[in-house]
Amino acid sequence: MPKTITTTPLTRRNAAVLSLAATAAVVASPAVAQSQPQLRWRMVTSYPKSLDTLDGGCRMLAKIVSDLTDGRFDIQVFAAGEVVPALAVLDAVQNGTVEMGHTASYYYVGKEPSLAFDTCLPFGLNARQQNAWMTHGGGAALMQELFAPYNIKVFPAGNTGAQMAGWFRKEIATVEDLRGLKFRTGGLVGQILTKLGVVPQQIAAGDIYPALERGTIDAAEWVGPHDDERLGLQKVARYYYAPGWAEGSAQVSLYVGQSRFDGLPPAYKSAVEQASAAVNTWMLGKYDNDNPAALRRLVASGAQIRLYSREVLTAAFDASEQLYAELSAKDPKFKKIFDAWNAYRREESLWFRVNELQFDSYMAFRLGRPG
Amino acid sequence: MPKTITTTPLTRRNAAVLSLAATAAVVASPAVAQSQPQLRWRMVTSYPKSLDTLDGGCRMLAKIVSDLTDGRFDIQVFAAGEVVPALAVLDAVQNGTVEMGHTASYYYVGKEPSLAFDTCLPFGLNARQQNAWMTHGGGAALMQELFAPYNIKVFPAGNTGAQMAGWFRKEIATVEDLRGLKFRTGGLVGQILTKLGVVPQQIAAGDIYPALERGTIDAAEWVGPHDDERLGLQKVARYYYAPGWAEGSAQVSLYVGQSRFDGLPPAYKSAVEQASAAVNTWMLGKYDNDNPAALRRLVASGAQIRLYSREVLTAAFDASEQLYAELSAKDPKFKKIFDAWNAYRREESLWFRVNELQFDSYMAFRLGRPG
Repeated sequence: MPKTITTTPLTRRNAAVLSLAATAAVVASPAVAQSQPQLRWRMVTSYPKSLDTLDGGCRMLAKIVSDLTDGRFDIQVFAAGEVVPALAVLDAVQNGTVEMGHTASYYYVGKEPSLAFDTCLPFGLNARQQNAWMTHGGGAALMQELFAPYNIKVFPAGNTGAQMAGWFRKEIATVEDLRGLKFRTGGLVGQILTKLGVVPQQIAAGDIYPALERGTIDAAEWVGPHDDERLGLQKVARYYYAPGWAEGSAQVSLYVGQSRFDGLPPAYKSAVEQASAAVNTWMLGKYDNDNPAALRRLVASGAQIRLYSREVLTAAFDASEQLYAELSAKDPKFKKIFDAWNAYRREESLWFRVNELQFDSYMAFRLGRPG
Repeated sequence: MPKTITTTPLTRRNAAVLSLAATAAVVASPAVAQSQPQLRWRMVTSYPKSLDTLDGGCRMLAKIVSDLTDGRFDIQVFAAGEVVPALAVLDAVQNGTVEMGHTASYYYVGKEPSLAFDTCLPFGLNARQQNAWMTHGGGAALMQELFAPYNIKVFPAGNTGAQMAGWFRKEIATVEDLRGLKFRTGGLVGQILTKLGVVPQQIAAGDIYPALERGTIDAAEWVGPHDDERLGLQKVARYYYAPGWAEGSAQVSLYVGQSRFDGLPPAYKSAVEQASAAVNTWMLGKYDNDNPAALRRLVASGAQIRLYSREVLTAAFDASEQLYAELSAKDPKFKKIFDAWNAYRREESLWFRVNELQFDSYMAFRLGRPG
């Protein structure tokens, strides 16, 4: 066992003990230095700097790693487009262009649909259930297996919580109202909405406002009140729908090149892993903290909150299940993860229905009214 | 800026670079050693070893700190009673008997009721809202101010999620059914239940089973399915009530003697803070992961799940508000924290009602049925 020094407030006696320890440690210094090299790595992200939750989380992650290593492990964060485009993060880490990336894995469902499990599937796990699946439910191992062919080590590193369903120029009362709707969204959501007659549109964030204003599109989803407020969509599409069934939570992830990660000293590996875990809570906390006030401001400036009818939710749920069955039939990798995830989703829903949901429902009944 | 070394897979070239770095670093070694002393600290907890979530979280926290410091900062975890009794953790850290403690601050409401805010108040914040309040909503600063007179630095370091309301020998349909009920519970909950005619009983965990079996008490609350299962209460009090309005979440906290913490090198301070944050997610994830299966087993062995009626919840909510008004009237410190917390609770309920709750409700409707 190493010699024990107990830190106490700065006293002469204590300073002397520390000083002795310093002298003694000179012998061991090469080993210490070897285990604590100066590193400067680059992290590319899929977010603009204006998103203080997503971009802010990446910078917080870098700061924590720096703090944990006395500044020896320095990670420089680059917003979308500064080194690689927003949706080239996976490629950049896989190819070794950079050591690290921070992104939402569902951006890459074009490579394979299973990547969505690392972010969310429509009608999927809420943020707590996703965290439970990743920390204790076998999700992390399945995701690591999925990312192995990309030579990427992957960590949960943030979550938005349940997103809003989006901004609509007209009210959506029935499934019929969805037919022919030009809706800005992407990935698996687009495939599900297509089954309901919606025409999905891929449009960059900055182009949503003019497209809605001109009527080129009829609806658009982004994130939730805090992030949406910056786009000003309530002025051109005032019906703001909930719940965001497509993203009951959305996890964002840290990617590290596998061989880069393997080459790190153990304490640096731990710093990366624990900083990701800490930022996971930090980011969800920031969304949950910032959304209520943003929602109040949006409503004050004209947004009209609407809840999807059960009919609309049920049609979307059924279309989701149909898509998952189709993907499972043709993609064994998807089927393997889906079967585990689906059983998990069912058991978590059962437990949340018995207790957590009863508590939240009563609190909403007593306190959750605007005023 | 420090010299940059990029780690790559082990190659001769890379090994040579690292070796050069090691040689160069010898000059700086006394500083390195001074900033990274060998420490062995003791953490006392309020939990028996059998609780693999609470006790397990403490051991995980110690492991993370060790991993982050290459084993230099070694924390030994002592279960309840091994060094000090379960409910003497605050005193032990305040008095400097040990450097660290892990406990639930509401155990100490006898010292002052405000300490409950660091765990939960009945009809309070759910786990995500508590995290949001602590990370971004001003809660952490208020808690630090509260703990300053105890010379304790306090960190959120775990959460149970919503607890169950407890085990009852008979069904509780109306408020009248609560009158005269001998109910094992404590703290502020006991004071609220007293207003409803309940007779609160303080009984150690190990004594609950025989007390229910003999009819010395009529009901008892503990935590939730995973922890409750070990007590076997379904055999002697089969009605298992939800929601646990008294603990919509329950945060547990890491205490560090303030002067001990102040004496730590910066990277060790960060290790303690980030390990606490990581364990916060780890523990809640473990509860959320383990509770569904435990609930199924409890039901299979005789537990009957019951939901409190709205009448009962409303009576308990009103009695809670009455207690908070009384405490605010006579305790300015309580009033200051309550006013901030109460406004936060209201805004969070509003936002969760609009979105998160709608999503969870639909998922429970579609998936959350036993079968």
